[in-house]
Amino acid sequence: MIESAKVAVVGVGNNTSALVQGLHFYRRTGSLVGIRRPEVAGLGVGDVDVVAAFAVSEGKLGRDLHEAIFEPPNNFPRLDADLPPSGVSVQRGLVDATEVDRVAQALKGAEVLLYSAPSGRLETARAYAEAALRAGVAFVNTTSDGVARDPSWVDRFEAAGVPLIGDDLASQFGSSVVHHALLRLLEERGLTLVSSYQVNLGGTEDFRNLVEHPNTKQRSKANAVGSDKVEMAPLGYLPHLGSQKIAHLNVEAQGWGGTALSLDVRLKVHDPSGAAGVNIDLVRMAAAALRAGRGGYLPEAAALLKSPPGTPI
Amino acid sequence: MIESAKVAVVGVGNNTSALVQGLHFYRRTGSLVGIRRPEVAGLGVGDVDVVAAFAVSEGKLGRDLHEAIFEPPNNFPRLDADLPPSGVSVQRGLVDATEVDRVAQALKGAEVLLYSAPSGRLETARAYAEAALRAGVAFVNTTSDGVARDPSWVDRFEAAGVPLIGDDLASQFGSSVVHHALLRLLEERGLTLVSSYQVNLGGTEDFRNLVEHPNTKQRSKANAVGSDKVEMAPLGYLPHLGSQKIAHLNVEAQGWGGTALSLDVRLKVHDPSGAAGVNIDLVRMAAAALRAGRGGYLPEAAALLKSPPGTPI
Amino acid sequence: MIESAKVAVVGVGNNTSALVQGLHFYRRTGSLVGIRRPEVAGLGVGDVDVVAAFAVSEGKLGRDLHEAIFEPPNNFPRLDADLPPSGVSVQRGLVDATEVDRVAQALKGAEVLLYSAPSGRLETARAYAEAALRAGVAFVNTTSDGVARDPSWVDRFEAAGVPLIGDDLASQFGSSVVHHALLRLLEERGLTLVSSYQVNLGGTEDFRNLVEHPNTKQRSKANAVGSDKVEMAPLGYLPHLGSQKIAHLNVEAQGWGGTALSLDVRLKVHDPSGAAGVNIDLVRMAAAALRAGRGGYLPEAAALLKSPPGTPI
Amino acid sequence: MIESAKVAVVGVGNNTSALVQGLHFYRRTGSLVGIRRPEVAGLGVGDVDVVAAFAVSEGKLGRDLHEAIFEPPNNFPRLDADLPPSGVSVQRGLVDATEVDRVAQALKGAEVLLYSAPSGRLETARAYAEAALRAGVAFVNTTSDGVARDPSWVDRFEAAGVPLIGDDLASQFGSSVVHHALLRLLEERGLTLVSSYQVNLGGTEDFRNLVEHPNTKQRSKANAVGSDKVEMAPLGYLPHLGSQKIAHLNVEAQGWGGTALSLDVRLKVHDPSGAAGVNIDLVRMAAAALRAGRGGYLPEAAALLKSPPGTPI
Repeated sequence: MIESAKVAVVGVGNNTSALVQGLHFYRRTGSLVGIRRPEVAGLGVGDVDVVAAFAVSEGKLGRDLHEAIFEPPNNFPRLDADLPPSGVSVQRGLVDATEVDRVAQALKGAEVLLYSAPSGRLETARAYAEAALRAGVAFVNTTSDGVARDPSWVDRFEAAGVPLIGDDLASQFGSSVVHHALLRLLEERGLTLVSSYQVNLGGTEDFRNLVEHPNTKQRSKANAVGSDKVEMAPLGYLPHLGSQKIAHLNVEAQGWGGTALSLDVRLKVHDPSGAAGVNIDLVRMAAAALRAGRGGYLPEAAALLKSPPGTPI
Repeated sequence: MIESAKVAVVGVGNNTSALVQGLHFYRRTGSLVGIRRPEVAGLGVGDVDVVAAFAVSEGKLGRDLHEAIFEPPNNFPRLDADLPPSGVSVQRGLVDATEVDRVAQALKGAEVLLYSAPSGRLETARAYAEAALRAGVAFVNTTSDGVARDPSWVDRFEAAGVPLIGDDLASQFGSSVVHHALLRLLEERGLTLVSSYQVNLGGTEDFRNLVEHPNTKQRSKANAVGSDKVEMAPLGYLPHLGSQKIAHLNVEAQGWGGTALSLDVRLKVHDPSGAAGVNIDLVRMAAAALRAGRGGYLPEAAALLKSPPGTPI
Repeated sequence: MIESAKVAVVGVGNNTSALVQGLHFYRRTGSLVGIRRPEVAGLGVGDVDVVAAFAVSEGKLGRDLHEAIFEPPNNFPRLDADLPPSGVSVQRGLVDATEVDRVAQALKGAEVLLYSAPSGRLETARAYAEAALRAGVAFVNTTSDGVARDPSWVDRFEAAGVPLIGDDLASQFGSSVVHHALLRLLEERGLTLVSSYQVNLGGTEDFRNLVEHPNTKQRSKANAVGSDKVEMAPLGYLPHLGSQKIAHLNVEAQGWGGTALSLDVRLKVHDPSGAAGVNIDLVRMAAAALRAGRGGYLPEAAALLKSPPGTPI
Repeated sequence: MIESAKVAVVGVGNNTSALVQGLHFYRRTGSLVGIRRPEVAGLGVGDVDVVAAFAVSEGKLGRDLHEAIFEPPNNFPRLDADLPPSGVSVQRGLVDATEVDRVAQALKGAEVLLYSAPSGRLETARAYAEAALRAGVAFVNTTSDGVARDPSWVDRFEAAGVPLIGDDLASQFGSSVVHHALLRLLEERGLTLVSSYQVNLGGTEDFRNLVEHPNTKQRSKANAVGSDKVEMAPLGYLPHLGSQKIAHLNVEAQGWGGTALSLDVRLKVHDPSGAAGVNIDLVRMAAAALRAGRGGYLPEAAALLKSPPGTPI
């Protein structure tokens, strides 16, 4: 029987809540619902153990991980009525670069460091990468901060025989995925795109941050959809949605003889589920590669990322 | 400069209206809007001439094709304010098998016979195929009546060096295409389908026939979508829709940890445009193959058909 | 403190399940969620006791009412994890008119007989009305079978000082209510209706019956909406919906200068909840009137019914 | 036969385009499509003549009104293929208060001044009101700038026997109207509102201004809907929509026993049509009142305004 992957997580937000609750759910039920890859290099969905967790919010520090994930502003729903204690106590995360060694020390016993903090803190992301490198632990950067797409970082991890995965996780299912698929379908069938829009509404803290600092993300969404005829409405932060995201998509096109065709879509999905459904694959890929002695870039992870190595920073 | 393909059409309904109006539109404007294949074996979209037309409705017989296409119950809209006379007078179609030779005679000068009558008249479909064979004219069967998926017909056309395309045209864009794409997308991303439905509403005479004789078509739609979890609501004939079709699709699925995800789609499209956008390719394939001396089955057409040779009758 | 209304129910289907589960829910929680009239003549929502229940299905006979309501094909969801036994055992209902006296006997102690069987069994409906009359128990006919709109029945109940309410309960909230409100709004604002449609999808046994015998109901729905421009698509029985109903409404209109305006609505609602939310008011009106010695027609109930006295049979 | 109302307009934007094109449309066709009040005090829809027009944009000055209305950024569609010259040349509007007399002079022959400039220029609005007062011409303020809800202005107009209508036109049909109607319907039927949102997307210059200065308008929209549970998403400026507005509304509620109910609405409407459909009534009311010697406040107009006299400034 294969040994479970040992994962440390940075950030105890909704995405971590979804991940750790889901791990319990899959172990308890044996279900494979919503799972893209039942096995990655022999590791099943339940073969992942969270062995350490880092956060900076006072309300989470020192608490059991299975309690801290329900601390506001987290609002991902409770999947199981009863979630037993995890035995993992949330540790204080990095505040400045002088603490890299402390974190590296705390990573003893871990195989993978899953960096799942909010985007937009490049120095912090790199400090954790440095700690992982020193500890010989694979690093998975799910944020848009540039680590794995900086060739010097890839080189250092490769030289050390430690895997580096990133940057910026591509959600398992969301408005970009659906919009892109519909536009590709139109193109395949020979229809002519006239106009299109996308509205995204959400209720998480992450979403609120994006609403207040919209530029980069909205631009990258337009890229993700793959057409300059798509107009992105401003993101709407609607607290009552909780961890759900609602997207309204519209596509206006022309077919034979210029006749009109329209598609209107409403998508409702839990954003943190889309992250956890990909993170489960990334951490298994990282652990398996570490065990196999493969360092640096992992090409098998590229399709699960928005900005894999090779993307401009 | 390539010589235009010479096409005779059977049936002067909405699909033929869309085809002949579109041919005028594309020649007049030089546009490629809504066109999947700008060229097929060197033939452009405008390189198709309708040289004969057959119908059985008294209101259409003897009239210029460009007038007959607007005769009720046809309700495909007028694409151009002014459509000049076509010079083609609608001829009386086959009523019984004794008339095969008359039709074969009338096909002189044509390269392709596009069979675009309502589905459900197997003997008639085969009589026209027989006439095409005798006249050395390629046969395109857009109906669900079994001609090209009967191996003995393929053999006869092949022996004669005459192309045979069929059966049952797959629309360029419609509810099956979209529904199938969404379900495939779910599967690719690892989501678990819980339930799904599809409602189709339309206002054409064809639609009214389907509403009154729903079984085969609805069953084949469920097949087209590719999942037995999809429930098909009964077709709704809503006359005010005219030649438009409206479909409501719903998909309920589960992602990571069993969390819910839903997709609701409304599609609005002109049904006859979806037919004409495929017929333009089929007739060009047929004409090119005839000129190249290729008889019988044309593999390049299979992707444009619901029941190509090899499908059970 | 007011004494609870004592109600006997005929039919142990989804509507009865919603009613009795809701009574428990409101007593337990003290909530007024979804309640239109917190009090009717001093009777609160919890001031209703079900004291007898009649059914004909073998699977329900002799069982406690709180178990029998979950027997298939019932599919209204369980509102409370724990529902204690009701103490009411389901009795055999009327099979023929010779049993009127037996039922009248069994109504001892009840103040109201809520007739909540499937529509379409006129003789049965009238036999229960007869039994109620003999027992001096108010009769509430929620089906479309003509009892209260037959003046001779009103006269007999009036002469006996026993209230008679009916016919055909108007749901608290459903596609007709929404569609009617939107069309009235258009009219108030001076917009011109061009076309409109309504599609109804459901998963209950009642819905299946309607799909198989569509005529009357669909016609009455078109009436309920109040415009002959509304086209009703055929009902769709989609078992996976359970007790939920989904409606798609579309309204196309013209405003100033003939410019287009469109409204598309998707409504999702539990059908039996819409019935129970009205039945709770009808049974309280009936009990209060009986106590006050008012017999026959109750004008205060007319707005809650589709076919009150005065409507043609 | 009644004499037409003589109207001068300030602002040659989309709303004026809709108004003057519509006047031509209704006179030409005799239609009453989209009209709320076929007659106001004997004045039909066609009984309105635009006799003067003021603007400040260089591209519009000196041009015939029927040309100037198509000048970008105006994007209301052309209703008639041929619109004959109006004979009214666009005059230079007020730039500062010293020009009040010039404008008053230019109002000779007019009965009503329809102030239809962008909102947010209080001094300008009041300068035009002053000019109207001096010229004895009724004043209609369609903007949110406070004129008619300032009692001192009402007093001055009343003393002069000149009607004053304002402030802030309530569109004939839009997202607030629909949202408000649905929430009122829920309440009437006893459902409990859980949450609700509204997204508004538009493509006019007005819309762009609102997107850039969102606060007041969005707040007033939430008020218009009449519930503090409604969350307003930020406005989205999508140029391709032109003068159309698209709104997505969602309502989540609870019915009997707390069961869930949801409503999703998509509304598509031409914004300037909603303004013109109300302006046609306001100018007829104003002209009729002037002729009848009624000055100051006109109570019959209050229902067509968002901020009639009595509303706080």
